[in-house]
Amino acid sequence: MINIGVIGCGYWGPNLIRNLVRTQGCKVKTICDLKRERLNFIKGERSNFRVTTNYKDVISDPCIQAVAIATPVSTHYQFAKEALENGKHVLVEKPLTASYAHGEELVYLARKKGKLLLVDHTFIYTGAVRKMKEIIDAGELGKIYYFDSVRVNLGIFQHDVNVLWDLAPHDISIMDYLLAKDPVSVMSTCVSHLCNNIEDIAYITVNFADNIIAHFHVNWLAPTKIRLIQIVGDKKMLVYDDIQNSEKVKLYDKGIIVGDNNREGIYKTLVQYRIGDMYAPKLDQTEALKTECEHFLECMKRGIKPITDGIAGLRVVKILEAAEKSIKEHGIIVKL
Amino acid sequence: MINIGVIGCGYWGPNLIRNLVRTQGCKVKTICDLKRERLNFIKGERSNFRVTTNYKDVISDPCIQAVAIATPVSTHYQFAKEALENGKHVLVEKPLTASYAHGEELVYLARKKGKLLLVDHTFIYTGAVRKMKEIIDAGELGKIYYFDSVRVNLGIFQHDVNVLWDLAPHDISIMDYLLAKDPVSVMSTCVSHLCNNIEDIAYITVNFADNIIAHFHVNWLAPTKIRLIQIVGDKKMLVYDDIQNSEKVKLYDKGIIVGDNNREGIYKTLVQYRIGDMYAPKLDQTEALKTECEHFLECMKRGIKPITDGIAGLRVVKILEAAEKSIKEHGIIVKL
Amino acid sequence: MINIGVIGCGYWGPNLIRNLVRTQGCKVKTICDLKRERLNFIKGERSNFRVTTNYKDVISDPCIQAVAIATPVSTHYQFAKEALENGKHVLVEKPLTASYAHGEELVYLARKKGKLLLVDHTFIYTGAVRKMKEIIDAGELGKIYYFDSVRVNLGIFQHDVNVLWDLAPHDISIMDYLLAKDPVSVMSTCVSHLCNNIEDIAYITVNFADNIIAHFHVNWLAPTKIRLIQIVGDKKMLVYDDIQNSEKVKLYDKGIIVGDNNREGIYKTLVQYRIGDMYAPKLDQTEALKTECEHFLECMKRGIKPITDGIAGLRVVKILEAAEKSIKEHGIIVKL
Amino acid sequence: MINIGVIGCGYWGPNLIRNLVRTQGCKVKTICDLKRERLNFIKGERSNFRVTTNYKDVISDPCIQAVAIATPVSTHYQFAKEALENGKHVLVEKPLTASYAHGEELVYLARKKGKLLLVDHTFIYTGAVRKMKEIIDAGELGKIYYFDSVRVNLGIFQHDVNVLWDLAPHDISIMDYLLAKDPVSVMSTCVSHLCNNIEDIAYITVNFADNIIAHFHVNWLAPTKIRLIQIVGDKKMLVYDDIQNSEKVKLYDKGIIVGDNNREGIYKTLVQYRIGDMYAPKLDQTEALKTECEHFLECMKRGIKPITDGIAGLRVVKILEAAEKSIKEHGIIVKL
Repeated sequence: MINIGVIGCGYWGPNLIRNLVRTQGCKVKTICDLKRERLNFIKGERSNFRVTTNYKDVISDPCIQAVAIATPVSTHYQFAKEALENGKHVLVEKPLTASYAHGEELVYLARKKGKLLLVDHTFIYTGAVRKMKEIIDAGELGKIYYFDSVRVNLGIFQHDVNVLWDLAPHDISIMDYLLAKDPVSVMSTCVSHLCNNIEDIAYITVNFADNIIAHFHVNWLAPTKIRLIQIVGDKKMLVYDDIQNSEKVKLYDKGIIVGDNNREGIYKTLVQYRIGDMYAPKLDQTEALKTECEHFLECMKRGIKPITDGIAGLRVVKILEAAEKSIKEHGIIVKL
Repeated sequence: MINIGVIGCGYWGPNLIRNLVRTQGCKVKTICDLKRERLNFIKGERSNFRVTTNYKDVISDPCIQAVAIATPVSTHYQFAKEALENGKHVLVEKPLTASYAHGEELVYLARKKGKLLLVDHTFIYTGAVRKMKEIIDAGELGKIYYFDSVRVNLGIFQHDVNVLWDLAPHDISIMDYLLAKDPVSVMSTCVSHLCNNIEDIAYITVNFADNIIAHFHVNWLAPTKIRLIQIVGDKKMLVYDDIQNSEKVKLYDKGIIVGDNNREGIYKTLVQYRIGDMYAPKLDQTEALKTECEHFLECMKRGIKPITDGIAGLRVVKILEAAEKSIKEHGIIVKL
Repeated sequence: MINIGVIGCGYWGPNLIRNLVRTQGCKVKTICDLKRERLNFIKGERSNFRVTTNYKDVISDPCIQAVAIATPVSTHYQFAKEALENGKHVLVEKPLTASYAHGEELVYLARKKGKLLLVDHTFIYTGAVRKMKEIIDAGELGKIYYFDSVRVNLGIFQHDVNVLWDLAPHDISIMDYLLAKDPVSVMSTCVSHLCNNIEDIAYITVNFADNIIAHFHVNWLAPTKIRLIQIVGDKKMLVYDDIQNSEKVKLYDKGIIVGDNNREGIYKTLVQYRIGDMYAPKLDQTEALKTECEHFLECMKRGIKPITDGIAGLRVVKILEAAEKSIKEHGIIVKL
Repeated sequence: MINIGVIGCGYWGPNLIRNLVRTQGCKVKTICDLKRERLNFIKGERSNFRVTTNYKDVISDPCIQAVAIATPVSTHYQFAKEALENGKHVLVEKPLTASYAHGEELVYLARKKGKLLLVDHTFIYTGAVRKMKEIIDAGELGKIYYFDSVRVNLGIFQHDVNVLWDLAPHDISIMDYLLAKDPVSVMSTCVSHLCNNIEDIAYITVNFADNIIAHFHVNWLAPTKIRLIQIVGDKKMLVYDDIQNSEKVKLYDKGIIVGDNNREGIYKTLVQYRIGDMYAPKLDQTEALKTECEHFLECMKRGIKPITDGIAGLRVVKILEAAEKSIKEHGIIVKL
């Protein structure tokens, strides 16, 4: 039985706790939050937790083998670092850290201590993304042309991070997992419409070698909820519409056929369209966070590397940091 | 009765002809195309046209008062120029010209000759865009925050222009018409996935003063057809989904309320969400091109300035040219 | 503080309990179920309930003022009767009873004992149905022409009742509430495709005076989930699409205009179509069961009649019983 | 070259003419309509037709081998009869005739004269219905459970026939083609909301042996356009949503597994749900009427029986006539 402590019990913490509680082989022992009302809330629901406002009670407890961190981004580094230094395995909410340097330090520390560092890139554990990974790895899309993502709705405005750091980690981690390619440059534009200078709408372009392009639109100020990812290759095309209740992933057997055409003595590229069947595979309906928590336990038990390990978290932070730099300098191209 | 000549009878020309034929007060006299098969096609449908492969037969005909041009973009300048010089009113397909300099010359020439120069920004004449203009001009959206547009589908790949010059004029002209503001800078990324180096996917960002931003995604290589414009202001939000058969325009009484919150001694911006009714106004169902042709006739008769005059066409070309420059220089910001 | 006992802790019971627990002014004291595993399940979640497998512990407890019944339909009569006889207020899951005679007896008993009898017609308490009631009562639809309802999906097959008694109470109660008219006859067809002779698909037609018609399609064996109600009047038309995440209720300013046309000496009815705006009103998002539980408490406290009282429940059972009779006699018309 | 005469040039006639004109191997020679304005309209479009207001000019013309009839239903019998008697092949709009007796006479006459009698059940020639036929004939659905159809929208109110005879032939012909089974009884309810006593909304139930049921909802007075057919079997489920621009046909690998369960000593039917992939096959996009016209020519040339021959037309009229009888007698069951 692995004892787990949870630091942070705000918006996301209770979801983590609910899933950890149901995960075979682990026990949520202690929950920490600075706000007493959040602790009362979580205690009201279940009685067998120890609660505390002092995170040291979690990190220094020798009975606790793993710590889950669901606090504001700016604090991830400190909590994760202390937890690792105290020999705990760590699960940390996305994004890994607020800077690449801090993230690198955590990755190094985790390796040195021989502890797990799992970043909570929740979407990677959805049935939808896992099925898309299968499809792409089987080569069904052929050579990838582009990755386009839109994640917009009204709210939830954050106080500590802008929309880039809040929403884009979801889509960037999905792209990183599915494409498994190193980007070469990043450009981004962000706008803040409120007096607080926290940006609420951002567009990010990520370039790869071989003309592959990825583009992200994240937005807290949109009239309707859209969560749409399109991945297009030279053989097939994939659409992931997370708003749908069913058939979230659709594989289109569609594309173009390019030929050379010399008719009439004029050299022209001839483009033909190929439109075939569409197929919406059955998706595993298990809650992603449940799969993730079980994966965390499994990795601890068997000493294996998590799918969303610190290195994966670091790749996401690298792109976010570059995008932030691009924004600060009015949209310049930042090489990676 | 105004006699009209049409130059260009490829994809769009027949639509123009069909609508001009039905417009009260004008007569399509001569149709010109380089391809004899296109002339046979159009003659097969109706017998009372003169057809020719020599555009001079249109431009030099003293009985013809107006010329409609539906040829490849690169030829707009020449045909429009000669037509104006010969004292004809001109209706030219979008975009006005392939360069700002050429467009400016046409605008100047039209003014000098006292002739109309109407650019076929067809969408401006749809019931949807006209209704949106009404709503925005009535101040219903409040201060505009952003304009976001996605126009993607599979095909139709053009041989002479890239996706930027092919599709973006639609959305840029809609934005220009609705916002009626001068942009300050443009950035764009474009990718070509075919061997012909004609770009098939483009993202364009247009910045205005006061933190207003516009963004465009145009794409010939997408799995499904999307034509979605979102315009968000501080009072209400507007969505124009052109794929829908009905309720294409939706006005959302939604937004955020920003307050200052000094609770707990910490200065924080408090954001609240306001979600009200949605309203989909009845839209005039008249074919846009019909309205446009009637407007062309009306402007000729009454000597008034068209809604989509040469200046409007020029504003669109200015943005396209700047976007093209940005693309060539790998995404730099181009000031206007 | 009102003490409540709950009998039945299967599929629906836990929802009732969750909402009763959060309702100000009441306390869930005892929970009864025949299955020990269900009691353990509910206890695991919260610790402050008394649990029992003997319903007498609920019904005979003098500290309990109200009983909520969420058991199989065939047992509603007995439990509600004993609860009323013991002087308890009763909230009973839909449908009220398995027969009109039994339902009538309960209504009579409740009146005699001066106790509440509230039937859990949950949908009546949704923001959507309440808004539709407002719209209809304001006369916006004009004279009602018809009510059409489709409620289909795959599952959940019941063991004790057919799809008619399982799903149709939802839509019949909505119709009864919105139209507030007495039907004159019922016809129904039902088919069972399984070996157990429990019907899984049913069509029900209900006729009213003045050519008003209502039709219901309920189905456990459908490929996709549809929950669509259309209510059409001579002025406007209302659509309630419960599958949508937003804009569930749409009011269409649409209709026909009938004139007499004597042109060409032939007497003909001239029908013209009127198509106006569409309007999707903001809906209260409160969970319906929460509103219902609060209404139950309010009615107890203030001694008022619930919206979905025994009489309302009886009207629904009357139609169900007539439909059942029609089915048994192969679709004959049953007068009410 | 086969010369064709067309009688009737109202709503549907021009579509027939447009497609016949483009069909290889035939020539539209003469067009007849009582209204001179319709003839002018059709002549304005194309000049090479002979037009007449006297149908005898079509039927007696020895140069004409085939006659297409697109007139009001009540006149189908007379025109088709005279055409057949004059030795012409006949294509007649749906429904075949206004009565079974008349239809039978035409079928007999066509056989006697050795001429084709093709009923314009247009939907049978769509890519969607032909693909569904393929799927069903390949046994993919397994044993059919039911066929459910909804075809509703606002308009077009007919003057001569009610909604049953106007819209239901589409769906009944699709059902007849796909299921290829003989129904045993029909029940129907129809309501007229206008002063003209022409019914605008109808529900029809058709029963087959083996518990197969078909149900139709046709309606001229609905707020939105719905054209949805669901066909469910014990293996798979088929949905045909004709409103969609793409993916009109979806095949769901879904169903239930019925087992017997003797747990706890109680005999119960155990139902489990099976939810697999969804597949939307590519559909032939050819206009149905084009395919139908080519089929008509092919059948004439090769002397073969059309898919939608007089017998198929008669099967549809049989159901319509029974439904009409059921309506007249307030919804009684009419045995076939």
